[in-house]
Amino acid sequence: MELMNFTKIAAGVYKACTGPKTDGILALVGNEAKLDSINSNYKDMPMPFEGVYSEKINSKTVVCVPKENSERFYGPGLRFKTIATNFTAMHLRCDHYGNSDNGRTHVPTPFYVSDKGYGIFIDTAEVISYYMGGTVRTDAKNPPVALNRGRGEWFADTPGDFVEASFENDADVYVFTGETMLDVVAKFNLLCGGGTLVPKWGFGFWHRTHIHYDEKDVKNEIDLFREKNFDLDVIGLEPGWHSNSYPCSYEWDEERFPDPKRFVNDLLDENIKVNLWENLFVSEKATIYEDMKPYSGSHMVWNGLAPDFTLPEARKIYADQHKEKHIDIGVSGYKIDECDGFDNWLFPDHAKFPSGRNAAAVRSSLGILAQKATYEIYRSINKRTYGLVRASAAGSVMMPYCIYNDCYSFEQYLTGLASSSFCGCLWVPEVRDADTSEEWVRRFQMCVFSPMLMLNAWANGAKPWQFEDVEDIIRDTIRFRKSLLPYLYNAFYTYRTTGVPPFRALCMDFSNTGSSRMSELDHTENPYESLLVSDIIDQYMAGDSIMVCPVRPEQKTRTVNLPDCDWYDYYTGEFVGNSTTIEIDCPLDRIPLFVKGGAMIPTVDRENNLIIRCYGESGKGFIYDDDGETYNCENGEYSLFSMEFNHENGVLNGKYLPVHCGYNSEYSEVHFYDKKDF
Amino acid sequence: MELMNFTKIAAGVYKACTGPKTDGILALVGNEAKLDSINSNYKDMPMPFEGVYSEKINSKTVVCVPKENSERFYGPGLRFKTIATNFTAMHLRCDHYGNSDNGRTHVPTPFYVSDKGYGIFIDTAEVISYYMGGTVRTDAKNPPVALNRGRGEWFADTPGDFVEASFENDADVYVFTGETMLDVVAKFNLLCGGGTLVPKWGFGFWHRTHIHYDEKDVKNEIDLFREKNFDLDVIGLEPGWHSNSYPCSYEWDEERFPDPKRFVNDLLDENIKVNLWENLFVSEKATIYEDMKPYSGSHMVWNGLAPDFTLPEARKIYADQHKEKHIDIGVSGYKIDECDGFDNWLFPDHAKFPSGRNAAAVRSSLGILAQKATYEIYRSINKRTYGLVRASAAGSVMMPYCIYNDCYSFEQYLTGLASSSFCGCLWVPEVRDADTSEEWVRRFQMCVFSPMLMLNAWANGAKPWQFEDVEDIIRDTIRFRKSLLPYLYNAFYTYRTTGVPPFRALCMDFSNTGSSRMSELDHTENPYESLLVSDIIDQYMAGDSIMVCPVRPEQKTRTVNLPDCDWYDYYTGEFVGNSTTIEIDCPLDRIPLFVKGGAMIPTVDRENNLIIRCYGESGKGFIYDDDGETYNCENGEYSLFSMEFNHENGVLNGKYLPVHCGYNSEYSEVHFYDKKDF
Repeated sequence: MELMNFTKIAAGVYKACTGPKTDGILALVGNEAKLDSINSNYKDMPMPFEGVYSEKINSKTVVCVPKENSERFYGPGLRFKTIATNFTAMHLRCDHYGNSDNGRTHVPTPFYVSDKGYGIFIDTAEVISYYMGGTVRTDAKNPPVALNRGRGEWFADTPGDFVEASFENDADVYVFTGETMLDVVAKFNLLCGGGTLVPKWGFGFWHRTHIHYDEKDVKNEIDLFREKNFDLDVIGLEPGWHSNSYPCSYEWDEERFPDPKRFVNDLLDENIKVNLWENLFVSEKATIYEDMKPYSGSHMVWNGLAPDFTLPEARKIYADQHKEKHIDIGVSGYKIDECDGFDNWLFPDHAKFPSGRNAAAVRSSLGILAQKATYEIYRSINKRTYGLVRASAAGSVMMPYCIYNDCYSFEQYLTGLASSSFCGCLWVPEVRDADTSEEWVRRFQMCVFSPMLMLNAWANGAKPWQFEDVEDIIRDTIRFRKSLLPYLYNAFYTYRTTGVPPFRALCMDFSNTGSSRMSELDHTENPYESLLVSDIIDQYMAGDSIMVCPVRPEQKTRTVNLPDCDWYDYYTGEFVGNSTTIEIDCPLDRIPLFVKGGAMIPTVDRENNLIIRCYGESGKGFIYDDDGETYNCENGEYSLFSMEFNHENGVLNGKYLPVHCGYNSEYSEVHFYDKKDF
Repeated sequence: MELMNFTKIAAGVYKACTGPKTDGILALVGNEAKLDSINSNYKDMPMPFEGVYSEKINSKTVVCVPKENSERFYGPGLRFKTIATNFTAMHLRCDHYGNSDNGRTHVPTPFYVSDKGYGIFIDTAEVISYYMGGTVRTDAKNPPVALNRGRGEWFADTPGDFVEASFENDADVYVFTGETMLDVVAKFNLLCGGGTLVPKWGFGFWHRTHIHYDEKDVKNEIDLFREKNFDLDVIGLEPGWHSNSYPCSYEWDEERFPDPKRFVNDLLDENIKVNLWENLFVSEKATIYEDMKPYSGSHMVWNGLAPDFTLPEARKIYADQHKEKHIDIGVSGYKIDECDGFDNWLFPDHAKFPSGRNAAAVRSSLGILAQKATYEIYRSINKRTYGLVRASAAGSVMMPYCIYNDCYSFEQYLTGLASSSFCGCLWVPEVRDADTSEEWVRRFQMCVFSPMLMLNAWANGAKPWQFEDVEDIIRDTIRFRKSLLPYLYNAFYTYRTTGVPPFRALCMDFSNTGSSRMSELDHTENPYESLLVSDIIDQYMAGDSIMVCPVRPEQKTRTVNLPDCDWYDYYTGEFVGNSTTIEIDCPLDRIPLFVKGGAMIPTVDRENNLIIRCYGESGKGFIYDDDGETYNCENGEYSLFSMEFNHENGVLNGKYLPVHCGYNSEYSEVHFYDKKDF
């Protein structure tokens, strides 16, 4: 084993290489690291330890990072069952999640965080195996206590000296330090380019129509939304818009959409954007088929070419066609499906690609390189995009895309939200169906505090009002989401400039909210006792100040853990506690929300008037704003309004916002919430 | 791609190599191929196809075997959810089954069978990825029909020209032909050495006692069996017998077992064998620790050394200690646990071993090489052994070991029984616990027709009589198993000499009992429609003539599929049908059994008198017998008695058995079952 030699590259960020030739995912994605933002926002700190080693073993590179016994680890990779990973082994690679957190996941980002205040990122697109502290070398400096399990010492985990990881080829290894896990994650996000810039319309209501809808069906659906007085901001077209899908032509079906330009612009005239579903496997009927052939792999997927997107040539063919046929006529973005690739239906691991890269590495980068290709078109015309993708990778933080999958479990949706914050991506649950009107409401409510509020009716043609008894609640839920625009827009501004995830696991802000306990021995189900780290996933942070406590269907009351600060009820402004646990009622029409004392939450009413909700005795806040549509903000065309309040004397500084603000700030109201106001 | 050049090595068995230096699992195991038995029992047939290709891609060897669209595949590897594998992808490697048939399994044998009458075996101990006909090359000769799934052609699978497999290093590839799948499997089993020789006591009742039991506890337990009038043939001691377990010392705990030799021999005096649990990870407290250290890997498991059993030196250290401390004092065999290795608790894939082999290959062969080491000791003293192991590999067919795991699902037990017959191993369900007395009975009944009838009370100290209301049924169930000894012994004789698995999937004898249908589309659970091959797993063949139809707990009636031959009720002798489906009642005290017309089923009563049950109008049968304990049968010391019956004139030829027969044949009864007799 060779000691790795780390160099500081930014405040408390260190880098070393396992060999002379590294060729990681970040280089493929090409995001610009925001090292200045790291330096200006975060503390410099020394390397948290000596003794990170690397070694070549057979065809693999092994990296060993020292650890202590009491650490908790979060990541690597997007997970759906637990967020802590102590003692687990996983073989991280891009795949559709298969109901086990074994490493096969939509976002196999090789980055993990320790609650001791550091994070490790191995910049590779290859398959990578992680052993999160349960492997013990025969020459261990701190070997675990020897146990005699036949005498009742029935504990399965063996704490070792290292987290060990192995992968093909060489890679850069980064160490991020921070006083909190939040700082560590933020630095990683800034290294990858900082959080993405989302257009304002992206925070509206998304509705994906039935797979077989034609232009008339879509327009009828829009009329229905208008009649029912439901907000609608984005229409998503599912596979049927293509002249061929699975594999894809990327060309409009002439029968269903005879004049796509007119269709898209008719919708734009009503302030409705169009998002197009696609997968990346190119049909023989596609106009780009022949051009793409030389840049594609040895195996077909869904009968289509599998393009090698690690080659710029392949991305250009794809991008040029997309620009001409979709983007130039007004299409707002994409839903890029299948790029994770269920093993059963993708190319095999031994498929050959013209770049010469391993098929697994091509697969791991397929999603993010398609994001890159489309994102770059939109940048080139100075328009923001926002969409969905089923696979991503390190570097995803810059990409205006949300991850989704085919699961439909409330619990997994919540775990995904918490876990995504540790791997630099946005995870979006979606509403598809429900058994009861109550479930319907609870699913919509959960999505209000997620990167995207979307009903995906591709299979069943569902409408938001389909449960009549809760139609008003759903209408109001969507409106509530839209009222939060200034607050969410702030959160994404923070994401972009400081790397703080807009939606994140509670333990990232409050590291004492997890707990460790032994598993339950059971001779027919689980014959091993091992350490379980239980983190709260049914509470999470949205933006600076709001703690979201989703309610599951059939839950009438719930327990809320109030971590170490003053918490106020979002709706009543009442102080509810600090460092305590409370039991609350869960009326159907409300998402339980708790706000940090001192917060100023900017919201808008239906007339776009600002309403600033102030919690506690005194505090401060800000409102970020820009044109919401272009990248001009990067050239200084934005407003950043600082404000503060003091409840006792009602002072609010800086009532009028600068010119770039799109809200009606001259009519803004300020609400000081406390018990007396309600 | 290079065309592989096959050479005939036995009747309808062909072999080719992917490169000059092959070093497979069969060479490691060292079984002697029974090519003569293949030649004498089975038909010579030509290669079923031209055009098996191999290719080097990056660090892997790829083998492509042609296929047709309508084929059904069974295997590779032991499975627990489905037995057919059409269109699946799996990464086959040794692991504890994790509730998904993704290739991680206890027995990752790289052998699969096609219902077109051939089988393919790739002789490697490495991890191997299989794509069972769903991959399509861009230069496919028979590309699948192009679909437009956005127009409703929502079918997920894409049939390709090949089954593709990839693995590290080179390997021998075998093609087995046969008129039926049974012939193909039998030839594979004979190539691997033919079925194992089980001692007669192995077919009795096994009881594994509580982990913390000492000598006195075990003897008290035996007394209870005697008092309750329950048969008991083997006592299994669980981890607590070691002075240290997890990791293991392999030395007797002096406090619990002060005089092991006396203890073992006291039990032998009562005709009870002793089986010892162990895992293969060597405790610092083991006498062999220092000797084993140089032959062990870079990483500990459960704090113990991980021996490199691919080295004969490591096996010798282990075997010498076992011989001296266990086998020479009368221990009958082992239960070798943990050798599959849950990823979380085993050595990592990058661990280094003194043989220089990949850790994954060391892991894949650990179980079978421990079997080999112990088996060879027993052979050296001319005593048969029988035991349990949690991992095996190609070559397992010769090993007197049953595979088990930690699952406890009725359905998975049944799938395991069916699947094991396709990968040359014996799978054993076990009884551990039950919620109801009915479940208790049904679980015991299922085990009657399995390679081992065992109650595993390691965790809860369960007794067979623990449900008082079914105590008599359980006692009779165990006795029923014992009455079947001559029939089961016959089945294992057939296994050994002709390769036919004693317990096997119904479709192996009756290939028309499977069916194909489309999966169910469901937008919240399964958004893909794909082909499902449903094989009957709740009916299976035991020996030549009995079809077992287990009853699940709470099942009061069940449907029985009667394939294409005459079937008779085992208990009443009544003709029940041919090529039809019947509905039967399921009284609690009976395992539904159906017998092929013409069968002669040899059984014994409690006094060891032979009772031969004849079904149908006329038929024939045989009785194999030998001393039941040694390998002398291999030198001709056995009896093979042929018999036939004709119901009309009651003729039975060959009433008296030769001298080696252990049954009281002079008192044998012959029952001609038909409607009139009952």
